[in-house]
Amino acid sequence: MKDLEDRIERAKDGLLEELRDFLRMPSVSASSEDPEGFRACAEWVREKLEAAGAQAEIMETAGHPVVYAEVGSGEKTLLLYGHYDVQPPDPLELWKTEPFEPTVRDGTLYARGVADDKGDVMARIQALRLYTERHGEPPFRLKFLIEGEEEVGSPNLDAFVRENSDRLTADACLWEGSLRDRTGRPEVYCGTKGLAYVELRAKGPDHDLHSMFGGLAPNPAWRLVGALRTIKDERGEITLDGLHELADPPSESDLAALEAIPFDESSLKASWGVESFDRDLTGVDALREYLLAPTANIAGIQSGYTGEGSKTIVPSEAFVKLDFRLVSGQSPDAVVKLLREHLDRRGFTDVEVVDLHGVEAAKTPVDSPVVEQAVAAWDDVGREAVVYPTIGGSGPTALFATGLGIPTVMTGAVANIDSRIHSPNESVRLDDYFETLAYFVRFFERFGR
Amino acid sequence: MKDLEDRIERAKDGLLEELRDFLRMPSVSASSEDPEGFRACAEWVREKLEAAGAQAEIMETAGHPVVYAEVGSGEKTLLLYGHYDVQPPDPLELWKTEPFEPTVRDGTLYARGVADDKGDVMARIQALRLYTERHGEPPFRLKFLIEGEEEVGSPNLDAFVRENSDRLTADACLWEGSLRDRTGRPEVYCGTKGLAYVELRAKGPDHDLHSMFGGLAPNPAWRLVGALRTIKDERGEITLDGLHELADPPSESDLAALEAIPFDESSLKASWGVESFDRDLTGVDALREYLLAPTANIAGIQSGYTGEGSKTIVPSEAFVKLDFRLVSGQSPDAVVKLLREHLDRRGFTDVEVVDLHGVEAAKTPVDSPVVEQAVAAWDDVGREAVVYPTIGGSGPTALFATGLGIPTVMTGAVANIDSRIHSPNESVRLDDYFETLAYFVRFFERFGR
Repeated sequence: MKDLEDRIERAKDGLLEELRDFLRMPSVSASSEDPEGFRACAEWVREKLEAAGAQAEIMETAGHPVVYAEVGSGEKTLLLYGHYDVQPPDPLELWKTEPFEPTVRDGTLYARGVADDKGDVMARIQALRLYTERHGEPPFRLKFLIEGEEEVGSPNLDAFVRENSDRLTADACLWEGSLRDRTGRPEVYCGTKGLAYVELRAKGPDHDLHSMFGGLAPNPAWRLVGALRTIKDERGEITLDGLHELADPPSESDLAALEAIPFDESSLKASWGVESFDRDLTGVDALREYLLAPTANIAGIQSGYTGEGSKTIVPSEAFVKLDFRLVSGQSPDAVVKLLREHLDRRGFTDVEVVDLHGVEAAKTPVDSPVVEQAVAAWDDVGREAVVYPTIGGSGPTALFATGLGIPTVMTGAVANIDSRIHSPNESVRLDDYFETLAYFVRFFERFGR
Repeated sequence: MKDLEDRIERAKDGLLEELRDFLRMPSVSASSEDPEGFRACAEWVREKLEAAGAQAEIMETAGHPVVYAEVGSGEKTLLLYGHYDVQPPDPLELWKTEPFEPTVRDGTLYARGVADDKGDVMARIQALRLYTERHGEPPFRLKFLIEGEEEVGSPNLDAFVRENSDRLTADACLWEGSLRDRTGRPEVYCGTKGLAYVELRAKGPDHDLHSMFGGLAPNPAWRLVGALRTIKDERGEITLDGLHELADPPSESDLAALEAIPFDESSLKASWGVESFDRDLTGVDALREYLLAPTANIAGIQSGYTGEGSKTIVPSEAFVKLDFRLVSGQSPDAVVKLLREHLDRRGFTDVEVVDLHGVEAAKTPVDSPVVEQAVAAWDDVGREAVVYPTIGGSGPTALFATGLGIPTVMTGAVANIDSRIHSPNESVRLDDYFETLAYFVRFFERFGR
């Protein structure tokens, strides 16, 4: 197997220079300052895909364009999702070197986007080139979908996927976004949680009143406390009618995967500055809650006077922002409906439920072929991967995993837990980058078998 | 009895001019712009008291000075409390005429401070003059305490009262601050509620976390909801351990007084824009809750993200501002202690209780001689007073009523419910002013019998 590593070793300088060219382009999707430069970045990616032997094109959306490419032929199809846009580099003064002048220090490459997600995109394109050099055109259909709006919430991806669902069919999808843990082990994520983000709003008097009327005037903050206490019980367990019933129960394999995750509780608690987890959860119970259970999180709450000292009023309004992270089976629309019914049933018909944002959960079984291949390919490069049945966060993976029914896995970790994604001095270790490049070649080899 | 009214009628122009002189002085205690002008106002009041036959002096405090005066002799002593300072006139653009250029329109006098409290102070001084003109020096000891810091919370009154407690002894005290209701009936208040204003603070992680950790990270907003749910039950009843046990039960006379209060529920609800009172209270139950029961009011609450849209975080901190209005027997210090013990007993030892402000309740029995005299003197001028056993608000009356044990009553309503106290276009109807002047003369006559 060593021939691949040798080949990469010999080509390193050129591969790195190519990545650095990609990183020099400030493709900040949140900025409208340089639309031509942004489009030039998409065109650059398209050309690189063409040069690697793919048929590549720019596909328009209502926002920034998608770069789409196909190569190879055969019965099976592999879809790769990534993005060429990056976060804004601010605050600039915290960067040790220019964010768009990629710089190597101590074997680490620093640049905006190197960890999220240009390193990943470049490694996959270079892997296709190396694969083709070794084996010719892939004996399977390989599709690249590289969007330009991930960092602004993929506002047009849903429409794009729906309009192009015929083209996007695949047997498996590799997503971006995985990491290496602190010991260097690559993590493979088999799903993301869903999200129902709502605001509950209560109204009291039509203007703030003197609190001499506190026993008589309806208080909207107390009203919200009343509603919230029906959503979690005294022990902190979620008591939203019907929520747990919607959930697909975790499989035996999910539970077995949990047991195999090295979970450093004390480091996590120390990094948060807390003595214990919520409800004093520990060990596998804590992991199960984190990865396989829904949440009902208060992300924000406000009512009345919140300045210094004491102002005596009955507030006129109150609101709370709640985000429910959801597991497979718990569709956000269904959960918002449950919440409305739950509150109505208890007399809180006056409490408004505003549906702010919803994301479907995505779940690929941990014993799916694509997960097995992802793990085996890490084995091929000498790494023992850690498999997460899902992660705690949410993302657009459901557009493919749930919407198109494509088994989807987040793998290919150029980044590590210290890569400072979205922050100044974003970085990737060069050894990790080249190992991940080899990993994608190995994955293609396995997928082609 | 008509001779008094005739006497006032003849003197009206001069009495009004004197009041206008008082109102022209911008004695805004919250402003430090014109200390000499402020002191000149105190001196003006002192001179008016001297001119009315009293021995008057300026008494220094750590802040603005008190004007103190005594006149008359006899076994009984009556103390009058008022203040010569006023609220700032802002926002100036909303005044129809200059706040410090008193103007009469349609029988109503507009000026900052006319309703709170210069009208009241002037009426009492003019009443002393008229009384003396008719009867000579009062056959009782009459004391005036006119402070200059009421509008900034009387920060030095407590110390002043303690230092001068020997001088301030009295058999009865007339306080400022009463009103006429919408039908013109003067209200007589026999007490004020106490106040314990606290902030509860909860801590979660030492920085805001991504809400992917929402099932695992301790959430301080939920922690506060957990604490708050132990303070009121699902029906909205206060469940703070020991609070109700501290309360002096209302007397039969208090309850009878409640029954006699004309309570226009629909107007009050309409003025707040609400359909119903808290807990659907109505009638005497609502009045009893408003006037004779403690409250546990959320004056403000805040945690996490409270801007537009959806930000997914586990907040690091949360706080709630609670004001407890207290009835006689419920000392604020005792209530804060109860609250701490209540939370500790339920495992909320981590929730900090910050004691921000406390005021003692004050209660003079509705069948006290001073209350009877206050009502009878209104009868003398042809008005049927409405007696409130207490009001919903709090104030420094306890310094005298509770601290010095002086039966204290708020009476003498130059102001009415539309007087716009603390607001632009503050006003008093001239007829009400002169009637109140006559009222104080009648009160002195009754007190002297």
